[in-house]
Amino acid sequence: MTIKPLDLDFAEKIKEKINNKTKPMGSLGQLEALALQLALLQNQQHCLWQEQLAPLKPVLVVFAGDHGISDEGVSIAPSSVTRQMVINFLQGGAAINCFCRSNNIVFNVVDCGLLEAIAEKSSMLITQRLGAGTYNFSRQPAMSLAQVETGLSYGDHLVAHYLRQGHNILLLGEMGIANTSSAAALMAALTSYSVEDCVGYGTGISSEQYQHKLALIKQALARLTGQEKIPELLSQLGGFEIVQLVGVIVAAAKQGLPVMIDGFIVSVAALLASKLEPNVLDYLIFSHQSDEKGHQLLLTYLQAKPLLSLGLRLGEGTGAALAFPLLTAAVSFYNDMATFDSAGVTV
Amino acid sequence: MTIKPLDLDFAEKIKEKINNKTKPMGSLGQLEALALQLALLQNQQHCLWQEQLAPLKPVLVVFAGDHGISDEGVSIAPSSVTRQMVINFLQGGAAINCFCRSNNIVFNVVDCGLLEAIAEKSSMLITQRLGAGTYNFSRQPAMSLAQVETGLSYGDHLVAHYLRQGHNILLLGEMGIANTSSAAALMAALTSYSVEDCVGYGTGISSEQYQHKLALIKQALARLTGQEKIPELLSQLGGFEIVQLVGVIVAAAKQGLPVMIDGFIVSVAALLASKLEPNVLDYLIFSHQSDEKGHQLLLTYLQAKPLLSLGLRLGEGTGAALAFPLLTAAVSFYNDMATFDSAGVTV
Repeated sequence: MTIKPLDLDFAEKIKEKINNKTKPMGSLGQLEALALQLALLQNQQHCLWQEQLAPLKPVLVVFAGDHGISDEGVSIAPSSVTRQMVINFLQGGAAINCFCRSNNIVFNVVDCGLLEAIAEKSSMLITQRLGAGTYNFSRQPAMSLAQVETGLSYGDHLVAHYLRQGHNILLLGEMGIANTSSAAALMAALTSYSVEDCVGYGTGISSEQYQHKLALIKQALARLTGQEKIPELLSQLGGFEIVQLVGVIVAAAKQGLPVMIDGFIVSVAALLASKLEPNVLDYLIFSHQSDEKGHQLLLTYLQAKPLLSLGLRLGEGTGAALAFPLLTAAVSFYNDMATFDSAGVTV
Repeated sequence: MTIKPLDLDFAEKIKEKINNKTKPMGSLGQLEALALQLALLQNQQHCLWQEQLAPLKPVLVVFAGDHGISDEGVSIAPSSVTRQMVINFLQGGAAINCFCRSNNIVFNVVDCGLLEAIAEKSSMLITQRLGAGTYNFSRQPAMSLAQVETGLSYGDHLVAHYLRQGHNILLLGEMGIANTSSAAALMAALTSYSVEDCVGYGTGISSEQYQHKLALIKQALARLTGQEKIPELLSQLGGFEIVQLVGVIVAAAKQGLPVMIDGFIVSVAALLASKLEPNVLDYLIFSHQSDEKGHQLLLTYLQAKPLLSLGLRLGEGTGAALAFPLLTAAVSFYNDMATFDSAGVTV
């Protein structure tokens, strides 16, 4: 199954519905574009005119994995923190847990390949390990092509699982110490931006660490021929959680499911997904612009207009969870706002 | 009672609490500044260290009034629409109703002086009429000084009423056909920005209407000596809802109550309130930057950093209601996020 472009057949009818609401035309700005996108997606899925939007039933999924390159000190934290944070997620103590609770979003985390597996059982934990951390991609490929293919294939199962549970929108996040290194390398390999433009300070490294990070990424990129296809690039540059994010984005779009993109790393996964399947972009909602250097450029490259810009640089899906109430608000005005006729407003 | 500046005694303790949360320092960006402001305000109110923030109990109040200048065709809609929209509010059919429902915010509307009073009773309606619409301020003062004083004095009663009801945060909105004219005139009178910079297209007038609006505002400003105090300026330039917004902002700050500011008109009321009582600004949260021309300049003037920028130009408090979940999220991470110690995260 390939991904259909957004069917614009219903666009006029949807716009007319929005324009008949008791407000000056276009006065809800980006929220109107959001309602249009959601309505197009829901109508496309039903292949029939839907007078109302279905209420959103969101699940936020954090994809976690470890990175061999973290041994090089390219992050503020050691690799062990990835697993500690996953345990923190499962105990409900992280920022993303707070925001999911605060906005009524179901929370899950996927172990895509932590250094050490999580022993405790949890209904929030999904285990899809591709290995015990990637190799240090500055010196060798992060993983094998077979691992990439397996990681990509998990997407279909996961999306089918969430559809069975009644979810109709996915919010994506990630956790992986040093994963901005992989993400920046992938962005540099796939766009015309310079490596310097793509590499940022992550969660807050020193300028010495930054220079080191930059040099290592350049070293990895020097290995490439420029002819690599997406799976080969992922095998070269990693990481496990990025591979699985790409897989789930493509799988969701195949099923017509809207996907909320979080910050830099998830946006890079969206970039990779769009290189596999250009129509994927129709299904994506970009939640925020982070503080990470390359993110703004990447959003411009993807012609994406993020909903929030709060200077976040945490990941975990926090931007997606924080932006989610804007989607609920878009559904609410689309479904429940009076029309000029029904309210007797005579502009 | 005058307004106390924000007591920074607890600032270090609050920042320490935020920095001990399981996240890189500062990685929640503007949300951390928001949590700090809310914690400072709540601690100030209790004069004792509060380990946790109280859950927010918001009420959104739309101040509505009619404007004599609307006879000149400076808006896309006639004056009668103000009242029609107030009735729409009371029936729950406007955008602001949808957003308040969607974000669990109590909704009220104040008749500050519609052309014709609302006959039907509603628990959502508060009647504080200063007259049946203002005079056309391009030709004569919008109202008397006595009306201004009465309008300002309503603030204390209203804030006391909401405090009794257990609300601990006010969200402010407005409705009044042609009220961007009054707001732009007041901004031009109080700042060094040119009239051209202050006057915008409101909810979407033509460039012909814009030129006319500009000329009328210049005509009104030409009447001023430059020596007017705030009440005199309000009497000259109007309107009833702006006067009452100024009153309620000052009254809320007196009681230590945080106030969410909406778009251009409410921000102009905040500007006026800050000229009466400079410390008022410590109590304000600026929810969004609207599409209205003068709003960005005004936010810069007030050194305010808005939470959202979605190209809204509707008013009604819609930006405040849409940004509210970010405050809930700030309270949530401040209260419920694990510390490095409690989660066993060793960065």
